[in-house]
Amino acid sequence: MTGTVWDRGEPRLAGPDTALRAELRTAAQHASGNVPVAVATDTAGQVLEGMRGRAFDSAAVVAVLDGDRLRGLVTLERLLAAPAATPLGEIMDDAPPVVAPSTAQERAAWLAVQHAEPTLAVVDDAGRFAGLVAAPTLLGVLLEEHDEDMARLGGFLGTAATARSSTTEPVLRRLSHRLPWLLLGLAGALLAAVIVGSFEEQLGQEVLIAYFVPGVVYMADAVGTQTEALVIRGLSLGIGVRRIAVREVVTGVLLGAFLGGLALPLVWALWGRADVAVAVALALLAASSIASLIALALPWLFHRFGKDPAFGSGPLATVIQDVLTVAIYLLVATAVVL
Amino acid sequence: MTGTVWDRGEPRLAGPDTALRAELRTAAQHASGNVPVAVATDTAGQVLEGMRGRAFDSAAVVAVLDGDRLRGLVTLERLLAAPAATPLGEIMDDAPPVVAPSTAQERAAWLAVQHAEPTLAVVDDAGRFAGLVAAPTLLGVLLEEHDEDMARLGGFLGTAATARSSTTEPVLRRLSHRLPWLLLGLAGALLAAVIVGSFEEQLGQEVLIAYFVPGVVYMADAVGTQTEALVIRGLSLGIGVRRIAVREVVTGVLLGAFLGGLALPLVWALWGRADVAVAVALALLAASSIASLIALALPWLFHRFGKDPAFGSGPLATVIQDVLTVAIYLLVATAVVL
Repeated sequence: MTGTVWDRGEPRLAGPDTALRAELRTAAQHASGNVPVAVATDTAGQVLEGMRGRAFDSAAVVAVLDGDRLRGLVTLERLLAAPAATPLGEIMDDAPPVVAPSTAQERAAWLAVQHAEPTLAVVDDAGRFAGLVAAPTLLGVLLEEHDEDMARLGGFLGTAATARSSTTEPVLRRLSHRLPWLLLGLAGALLAAVIVGSFEEQLGQEVLIAYFVPGVVYMADAVGTQTEALVIRGLSLGIGVRRIAVREVVTGVLLGAFLGGLALPLVWALWGRADVAVAVALALLAASSIASLIALALPWLFHRFGKDPAFGSGPLATVIQDVLTVAIYLLVATAVVL
Repeated sequence: MTGTVWDRGEPRLAGPDTALRAELRTAAQHASGNVPVAVATDTAGQVLEGMRGRAFDSAAVVAVLDGDRLRGLVTLERLLAAPAATPLGEIMDDAPPVVAPSTAQERAAWLAVQHAEPTLAVVDDAGRFAGLVAAPTLLGVLLEEHDEDMARLGGFLGTAATARSSTTEPVLRRLSHRLPWLLLGLAGALLAAVIVGSFEEQLGQEVLIAYFVPGVVYMADAVGTQTEALVIRGLSLGIGVRRIAVREVVTGVLLGAFLGGLALPLVWALWGRADVAVAVALALLAASSIASLIALALPWLFHRFGKDPAFGSGPLATVIQDVLTVAIYLLVATAVVL
């Protein structure tokens, strides 16, 4: 008997979440069943012999099956290095990285890297082998996800093309990919002006309060952007917002306390007003905490509703943080100073 | 004769730029010479036979050499599918993706994806074969670069660990990775306050000018962040700042003109002051143009001095844009309004 190597055609897809799958691309969409498969008792020599003359999508890894269950994977390198009489059961990795057909593509790619495996096995909920995702596919997935995350954090339309084309595309298309978020930003900018304007009387009494508006807004932005970057990465690796929420909020509060504690003596020394210094310090504490919260909440909301959480970062989060920060600072400042 | 398959040990590294290599990780550092090699006249059957019993780092691709020159690459899938008597010269890809040993790692990974190749060949300046970079290595490289870009755009220390660890790390380590950039931001925030303060008299005469400070700063930020994201991606793919500079600056000016043109009637209608509306519009035009310029210039400077250009994006660029924007807006506003 030669090795039980056969082509398996299309991977089997099953399960109710077809709608979700259409939204997020999953491991199943990248899996190929046209790969070498064998059973544990086949020998290395038999399998190598059986692979000849076949046109596989990927031959980097042999799937060792028992019926339609995956038992393990053997890399080609191990298969070649083993003596011809060695059964695959002895050289297979019997705990290879396995993902469900519905696993999000970037998480799948990340698992493969963590295991230093060139190939990922896809197994359905019933434990049936559904195909392998080959390394070149995983590479493409990672690059695409990278582009998307950067585009969304940077404030491009989510549908903008890949980094290479968006880097070199002509001016008109550049404009059309960027204006939508900027128009949202302009609305936020006008709202901020309305908020500042509602403190007209107080600012007329003490114009010093106005000095620190851009600085407080900038600091809230900076803290929020750090949280956003963390959340986007965490979510695409399958680390949920809940798991990091407590630490992030604590970090945001501590950063705000630290920055406020540092600003207090500096503002006092430079402008000679203790009350304004206290207002700036309190505003930094409040704004940092709230920026962290918004940076956590928005991506989580997008994720909840089945959208790419990265949409909840970048321009949208920033403009909400800015408007809230302006309001908080002016409320605190007028309460403390006037 | 069986195929001329042999192990090649360590890849050959030569060249004067050892210092640069220590800074940027390159294709050479990831290349392995322990891969199957053959000559063009070897047949598929001979090569497959010759590969048996050897422990390669990667067996996904056979390098076809002529002496120490690379002639082409044959993927294992093609090797298996070909009739045993086919010479490799007939089935090899004779224009495979090839990089120099000094090629930056992310650019190398990107090339592999573009060619849908599982493996990249490294060839030195004299055309000598220096080894292959296998797909799992390329995967790791892409994930690492992604983490780095996000960390720098987000405002973490460049040396902060990978996304997974930074997502789950304890509060104290979180603080230490983030505070350095935030302290720089605090200095910028105080500088912005000094600038606003130097317009004390003018703001006292017309407090309406102060309303639009946060909005103008926000818009400059938003335009600048878009350019930053584009530049970081472009540079890591080997697209230089010069190639995109003209288009980006034109785009920045046009975005500023568009946003200013939209803000003019809105501010006029909402606050009933044509002079303030003109000042806001002019400031938006100037701030957008300058934000694009800074977002181009800073990464370019870091790149020039052999540092990761992503350091020139995120917090550093943002704080410079903010301070400049505050100054520009107040200069324009006081000139137009008072």
